[in-house]
Amino acid sequence: MSTITPLGQRVLVKRLQAEEISAGGIVLPDTAQEKPQEAEVVSLGLGGKDEDGNTIEFSVKVGDKVLISKYGGTEVKIDGEDLLILSESDILGIVA
Amino acid sequence: MSTITPLGQRVLVKRLQAEEISAGGIVLPDTAQEKPQEAEVVSLGLGGKDEDGNTIEFSVKVGDKVLISKYGGTEVKIDGEDLLILSESDILGIVA
Amino acid sequence: MSTITPLGQRVLVKRLQAEEISAGGIVLPDTAQEKPQEAEVVSLGLGGKDEDGNTIEFSVKVGDKVLISKYGGTEVKIDGEDLLILSESDILGIVA
Amino acid sequence: MSTITPLGQRVLVKRLQAEEISAGGIVLPDTAQEKPQEAEVVSLGLGGKDEDGNTIEFSVKVGDKVLISKYGGTEVKIDGEDLLILSESDILGIVA
Amino acid sequence: MSTITPLGQRVLVKRLQAEEISAGGIVLPDTAQEKPQEAEVVSLGLGGKDEDGNTIEFSVKVGDKVLISKYGGTEVKIDGEDLLILSESDILGIVA
Amino acid sequence: MSTITPLGQRVLVKRLQAEEISAGGIVLPDTAQEKPQEAEVVSLGLGGKDEDGNTIEFSVKVGDKVLISKYGGTEVKIDGEDLLILSESDILGIVA
Amino acid sequence: MSTITPLGQRVLVKRLQAEEISAGGIVLPDTAQEKPQEAEVVSLGLGGKDEDGNTIEFSVKVGDKVLISKYGGTEVKIDGEDLLILSESDILGIVA
Repeated sequence: MSTITPLGQRVLVKRLQAEEISAGGIVLPDTAQEKPQEAEVVSLGLGGKDEDGNTIEFSVKVGDKVLISKYGGTEVKIDGEDLLILSESDILGIVA
Repeated sequence: MSTITPLGQRVLVKRLQAEEISAGGIVLPDTAQEKPQEAEVVSLGLGGKDEDGNTIEFSVKVGDKVLISKYGGTEVKIDGEDLLILSESDILGIVA
Repeated sequence: MSTITPLGQRVLVKRLQAEEISAGGIVLPDTAQEKPQEAEVVSLGLGGKDEDGNTIEFSVKVGDKVLISKYGGTEVKIDGEDLLILSESDILGIVA
Repeated sequence: MSTITPLGQRVLVKRLQAEEISAGGIVLPDTAQEKPQEAEVVSLGLGGKDEDGNTIEFSVKVGDKVLISKYGGTEVKIDGEDLLILSESDILGIVA
Repeated sequence: MSTITPLGQRVLVKRLQAEEISAGGIVLPDTAQEKPQEAEVVSLGLGGKDEDGNTIEFSVKVGDKVLISKYGGTEVKIDGEDLLILSESDILGIVA
Repeated sequence: MSTITPLGQRVLVKRLQAEEISAGGIVLPDTAQEKPQEAEVVSLGLGGKDEDGNTIEFSVKVGDKVLISKYGGTEVKIDGEDLLILSESDILGIVA
Repeated sequence: MSTITPLGQRVLVKRLQAEEISAGGIVLPDTAQEKPQEAEVVSLGLGGKDEDGNTIEFSVKVGDKVLISKYGGTEVKIDGEDLLILSESDILGIVA
């Protein structure tokens, strides 16, 4: 199986299908111009550095369900799965 | 019930309906091109970091009634409620 | 009565009507493309932070008559008064 | 008489009329697309702060004749005089 | 044989042909507007400097298979091979 | 005679006429879209400040023949001479 | 003979003609939208300064064959030679 390790402060996420979205949970209105989407964090990147050279920690962890901006990131298909590489700053929040 | 924890210096707010707006309070003129709206802070984000790595504190707290820019933030519906994830910098002021 | 506490380095001001403008004072030419306007500072915001985390002091105080850029800020009506929330950097000067 | 104290690193200047421009002095070509203009510094602002919180000193002083960019600043008329509030960085040079 | 040493935080990569792409591996969807492409790192640049003058280390090494943005970099042909000089920040991730 | 002291990291230069350009010297091609021009430095500005408050030294000195970008700077005529006030960063090089 | 000393982090380069390009070397594809070009470094600039006031060293030296972006820099003809003044950051790599 192939894997991708994102560079810098990027993460790899898998978009969640309708049936995977938490019951009673989040419904995205049809009318919103930029709909966020639910996704699951698959892997974290190598991490960026702050001005003092320390690695910046990620605020999300593998397995987190997250809301992402609809148009952020770059699509890539790995072993048949639709994945997205996107900057952590394009993640709006963690769903619990 | 689902919850969302916003990332970074973002907050989750609920737009207030007309009947919820404080009596004798704030009336937004129809003619203003960018009308601010009243909303209530539902939850705070994980917080951003300043250049020294210290967490930046939020100026608003859960339950605060706030004025927000009409076009800021991203809409999301959770358990039937219309909510917005927006950057704290898009909050104009706290209503009391 | 409702009050608004602006966030960060913003201030709340009230536009001055013609009769309130200081006699013998400032007349704004009709031909200027961007006319500044006289206003009075109603309240100061919570204050921004500089890079060392110290609160930045305001250069204006409550009651100051100020010249503001015509198109700066966001209009809001509180208890029947037309007010503006604007960044202190949009204040051109203090009138005395 | 009214006065204006500019905020930050702004200055208040008075455009010089043709007869006030120094004899044998500066003639601005008609063909230049952005003609600088001669003006006299009327008052200095409160001063900006550098990153260490120290006040930045002005390079001009009250009474200096200066060349200013034609389209910089905001016009204001005080006690019948045409004045301009402009950022010190919009002053090209001091005329002597 | 000619070689190119990229300047700064740039790397030299060789686009991988279809037959070279890891079996069972990554398939890029035809519908994606900006398709990333697989490439192999041929050489690293001289390295950039951070604010303290220390060399910034590369996150990739020679021989790494990487995903790159389709439109990033500048094409150059060396000894018959199609190569790209691109900024390391245009590399999305490392494929393993 | 009038003089101009440029503010900050600006310099005052005089465009050189064809007959003044160094013999055997620089010929600017007619086809170049942005032709640099030869000019002579007439006076230096007051100097800018770096982040530590130290004056930034000029790389050019009065009398230097320099190549300047054709469209940089602001034209001004002093005592019948065509001069330009321009930022030192708009000087491409020193001609010797 | 005239010389030009570039200001700051600029270098002076001479475009290489077809016959001068290293045999067996680099061929630039006709279809590339932005073709890099081979050039030789003729002289280095005075050097820029980093935030601590130290001179930034050049990564190229006089005589280096370099790949440059086709549209970077400013053309100038000195003693009959076509030369370019360009920022070192517009040099993609060193050819060896």
